[in-house]
Amino acid sequence: MSADQKLSELGYALPELPAPGGNYVSAKIVGSLVFLSGVISMNDRGVMTGIVGQDRTIDNGYAAARQCALMQLAVLKRTLGSLDRIKQIVSVNGYVNAAAGFPDAPKVINGASDLLVEIFGEAGRHVRAAIGISAVPRNAMVEIQMTVEI
Amino acid sequence: MSADQKLSELGYALPELPAPGGNYVSAKIVGSLVFLSGVISMNDRGVMTGIVGQDRTIDNGYAAARQCALMQLAVLKRTLGSLDRIKQIVSVNGYVNAAAGFPDAPKVINGASDLLVEIFGEAGRHVRAAIGISAVPRNAMVEIQMTVEI
Amino acid sequence: MSADQKLSELGYALPELPAPGGNYVSAKIVGSLVFLSGVISMNDRGVMTGIVGQDRTIDNGYAAARQCALMQLAVLKRTLGSLDRIKQIVSVNGYVNAAAGFPDAPKVINGASDLLVEIFGEAGRHVRAAIGISAVPRNAMVEIQMTVEI
Repeated sequence: MSADQKLSELGYALPELPAPGGNYVSAKIVGSLVFLSGVISMNDRGVMTGIVGQDRTIDNGYAAARQCALMQLAVLKRTLGSLDRIKQIVSVNGYVNAAAGFPDAPKVINGASDLLVEIFGEAGRHVRAAIGISAVPRNAMVEIQMTVEI
Repeated sequence: MSADQKLSELGYALPELPAPGGNYVSAKIVGSLVFLSGVISMNDRGVMTGIVGQDRTIDNGYAAARQCALMQLAVLKRTLGSLDRIKQIVSVNGYVNAAAGFPDAPKVINGASDLLVEIFGEAGRHVRAAIGISAVPRNAMVEIQMTVEI
Repeated sequence: MSADQKLSELGYALPELPAPGGNYVSAKIVGSLVFLSGVISMNDRGVMTGIVGQDRTIDNGYAAARQCALMQLAVLKRTLGSLDRIKQIVSVNGYVNAAAGFPDAPKVINGASDLLVEIFGEAGRHVRAAIGISAVPRNAMVEIQMTVEI
């Protein structure tokens, strides 16, 4: 089954993409690599804000990270025409808006990793780094940056 | 007009480069990609320090980010001989020394992005991530890491 | 002398690797690049925790960063069979669990950089970025992410 089919079978809808908030682009292709800009957690009601470990739970953060991954897939679909051009997901860097000393950024970023493996199977497994930081743009819960191979 | 000409036409001078503060190099070429080390905001009076959203404004940070981009161009010029060997700017990762909860890292990093587009035009448009962190080397306002294609 | 020989001559033992804490992989190869997941500082007694500039010294952090580099070499050895397949170390991104305003993340990450140059010589010199953040997974002192060329 193709990644595009898998997405709809699982009931995921790719979100609308906001315009970049600066003089940059959402995706850039160099050879077989597609580099993506970081995206912050948003749903159809706007930015998913808050600080995990303070006023948001790990589950809230997990849902926010999944939403970031869906946004990156929307960027990839717009850039490539079809998700089926993706050979593998290479890397995911996840930044969690976290209370100082919050130890569980990996559990939050699993929201993105689990979705990518659900959609792409073994090709969706990627390297990653997950860290907690003190100032995410627009106070979003999560920011995710990705690289994929086509 | 070449990038080198554009720089001088716009009145930008490439700064002197400090020695790396450790056992690493400023640039590394792999195939057509040039990976660059992070550089902190400096001008001819030294490190541009301070915390954006606390004792420094967004405009201060914007100027610091532009200075980081100029330093990266100085690294590229030294590495490549001429900026005209650059095919496109691939990525910019910007770390802002920010008060906890500061929401505007993107507005700060625009200082780098705007300069790169001013110099390189469409080829200067890049992917990026902009985040706020609590501890930048030497208390600099901004650190920027970049990747370019030659 | 090969990198594998150099390691044992210098008396370094590659650590046992823990299982990834999520739905991701430790290494991914794309063309001649090997992308690695971030690893946190661990030794045979477990995670090396603490906040540099608060309850840990720069020397503590330096030792933690070196341990991260050894773990990345263990990942590379498992992935590639031999460290001698490594052509050069490309990049090191170091995240230090640091007190707000801590200015010396580079001195901490030197623990990784120095080891890589000790083992690989000139080919071990890499680009890097070193920053201090407020929330590292499992409260580890250091997290290191790397890219190498084979």
